[in-house]
Amino acid sequence: MGSATPEEEPDGLSAFKHAFRRHAAGVAAITAITPAGKPVGFTATSLASLAAVPPLATFNIARVASAWPAIESTDYVAIHMLGSRNKSLAEKLAGANELRFVGDHWRPGPHALPILEGVTAWMVGRIVERLYVAANAVIVVEIEEGGPGEPDDALIYHERAYRRPGERL
Amino acid sequence: MGSATPEEEPDGLSAFKHAFRRHAAGVAAITAITPAGKPVGFTATSLASLAAVPPLATFNIARVASAWPAIESTDYVAIHMLGSRNKSLAEKLAGANELRFVGDHWRPGPHALPILEGVTAWMVGRIVERLYVAANAVIVVEIEEGGPGEPDDALIYHERAYRRPGERL
Repeated sequence: MGSATPEEEPDGLSAFKHAFRRHAAGVAAITAITPAGKPVGFTATSLASLAAVPPLATFNIARVASAWPAIESTDYVAIHMLGSRNKSLAEKLAGANELRFVGDHWRPGPHALPILEGVTAWMVGRIVERLYVAANAVIVVEIEEGGPGEPDDALIYHERAYRRPGERL
Repeated sequence: MGSATPEEEPDGLSAFKHAFRRHAAGVAAITAITPAGKPVGFTATSLASLAAVPPLATFNIARVASAWPAIESTDYVAIHMLGSRNKSLAEKLAGANELRFVGDHWRPGPHALPILEGVTAWMVGRIVERLYVAANAVIVVEIEEGGPGEPDDALIYHERAYRRPGERL
């Protein structure tokens, strides 16, 4: 990729796309409520641990995302770890906005946040930083409480498909 | 986890630890050079895409990490995606500091950065933001160039073990 690709993409974009196609990620679901009390949520492959003491996690979001107005204005979010059995839940939270909270797959939890059912773990935390970079934001959350969920293998996203983790190496 | 665990951990820490044990992550390796020109590097399970246009990626680091002085002072880093065949490379980059660059598993690349051999893809980018949170930092990198590496399944870390991705769901 030292020169322009046939599609004339800049080198940086071409390298970025290629590298992240080779990457794998665990799948999380983030939920929040709008100032009017409406639930919003989305799947995230960017969830990462930042520190254990204090317990801090990060995720990334585009500021054109449907959930951004809620994430921009709220103090609290719920973060859910998805398991291999949660593929349909992941698809629902990545699907049509107006259908994401239609159904009995969630219940109100701490701070009235939507807590998703059947996940492998959930956490509720306070947004302590919002770093704006271009049209995006890095969100830093300090975890305050949570619940254990149902044991399951993690849900992985790799090569444009949901997968379960494979054998130990 | 509504009450203190037997170990008397705070609720937030207990929920955080439990949730991230259930999470899975792809494994990347970040390298840089110190002002004196010495290579440094480490494995990261926090690498995430922030945006494609411009191509931005994030990773998290503790400011007590051995590589932190280099990351704090340098303009450029190399980010490598690790494949399932790269387990021993991952272990080397997570092992004793003084041994991480002993061997022929790397070569100098753009900006004199150490480029690791045999990875599935690599990118070189400029650090555009460093967000300090408690004793940690979120690093934002704008990708400028890269190379394709060798095709392979991604390397995953889940339940304290390196794994390959499993079946599609």
